[in-house]
Amino acid sequence: MSLFNVGFVIFPQLTQLDFTGPLQVLARLPASATHIVAKSEVPVPSDCGLGLVPTHTFATCPPLDLICVPGGNGVVGAIGDRETIEFVRRQAATAKYVTSVCTGAFVLGAAGLLNGRRATTHWAYAELLPLVGATHEKARIVKDGNVITAGGVTSGIDFGLAVVAEIAGETVAQAIQLGIEYDPAPPFDCGHPDRAPEAIKAMLAARYESARTGVRAAISRSPTL
Amino acid sequence: MSLFNVGFVIFPQLTQLDFTGPLQVLARLPASATHIVAKSEVPVPSDCGLGLVPTHTFATCPPLDLICVPGGNGVVGAIGDRETIEFVRRQAATAKYVTSVCTGAFVLGAAGLLNGRRATTHWAYAELLPLVGATHEKARIVKDGNVITAGGVTSGIDFGLAVVAEIAGETVAQAIQLGIEYDPAPPFDCGHPDRAPEAIKAMLAARYESARTGVRAAISRSPTL
Repeated sequence: MSLFNVGFVIFPQLTQLDFTGPLQVLARLPASATHIVAKSEVPVPSDCGLGLVPTHTFATCPPLDLICVPGGNGVVGAIGDRETIEFVRRQAATAKYVTSVCTGAFVLGAAGLLNGRRATTHWAYAELLPLVGATHEKARIVKDGNVITAGGVTSGIDFGLAVVAEIAGETVAQAIQLGIEYDPAPPFDCGHPDRAPEAIKAMLAARYESARTGVRAAISRSPTL
Repeated sequence: MSLFNVGFVIFPQLTQLDFTGPLQVLARLPASATHIVAKSEVPVPSDCGLGLVPTHTFATCPPLDLICVPGGNGVVGAIGDRETIEFVRRQAATAKYVTSVCTGAFVLGAAGLLNGRRATTHWAYAELLPLVGATHEKARIVKDGNVITAGGVTSGIDFGLAVVAEIAGETVAQAIQLGIEYDPAPPFDCGHPDRAPEAIKAMLAARYESARTGVRAAISRSPTL
């Protein structure tokens, strides 16, 4: 039996937990192989000062059954990089599942994969989804056909479990959830802007306004859109 | 002003999310520097096929204000490695906070740091805590003096936010929680054995029995205990 090939696309300045959260879950998908794919074999610097070593380059990566693109500030570079976008588009054409976490949605978008789709992304970037032809659905995980998008950063863990449940069944997903003791107890009820105090949102407003401007500009000058 | 030095100790076959979850949170602690510390500069293979690049070796790591040891199957090797245990013990002697996630608790334990302490670890290994002189407290995060231990894998995210709240205040922790959209929506209510179906626990029983045997043996032959 051939293995189910899961591939994560990584690029400089990704938000590492967008990737490492679902990686921890999907690496336990039975009868699967996990591929960590980058432009070259050189370790990829993440947002946290942690370098991540790819297992494959775009050239050596086998055809993927599931492609997952994480997000982070590095999506500005990824959107503008023809080689990255063409790899995503090429793999997505034959993948069973085309997925993203956080602002990885805009990399899918730059590859033309969200056109006419319902999708989600990090809450601070949701208003930009129409720029890549998508309609924002306010949810932590959105499935439209074979495209599954997840919200910001930690939503990648919920996403990973949902994907395992879809591919391998609920029992397998439940066993993985128990294994990673995913019984979250956030110290505050402020993980979504609908529930966060105004003062907390105000602390982040300028940073995200600036970050949105960067993503908007990258989309507008995208060589592939 | 000197920076608050946060250090994660990584070793082969760690469970990468034990480390990358709290890393994502603690890397945003204001006025801090994050150090990813291993025995050598060589990338460290994690449980998911992902290689992690250290920023420091035991020799080059500065004195840490907070040391965090993640877990995973690799703790068997770490417990048996005098150089690793001595690094942890030496840093812990002057650190403000001595912490672990998941079975990283047993690395602290092998360094003699849990003797007489209340502590927690991954649910499947809780019964082994007395072997390192600790009393298990059934909680996702346990603080006893300057020692903070967290439960299995994903509890490291809750732990990271709790630590930020303690060091930098609740407002800062809340802003980080909103930034990483930590508004978890686990697909199943089975992330803790108290709530998981018996059939799911049975699926994991043999694997954890074998893993416990390995950790028990490593503790019993520990050169430092």
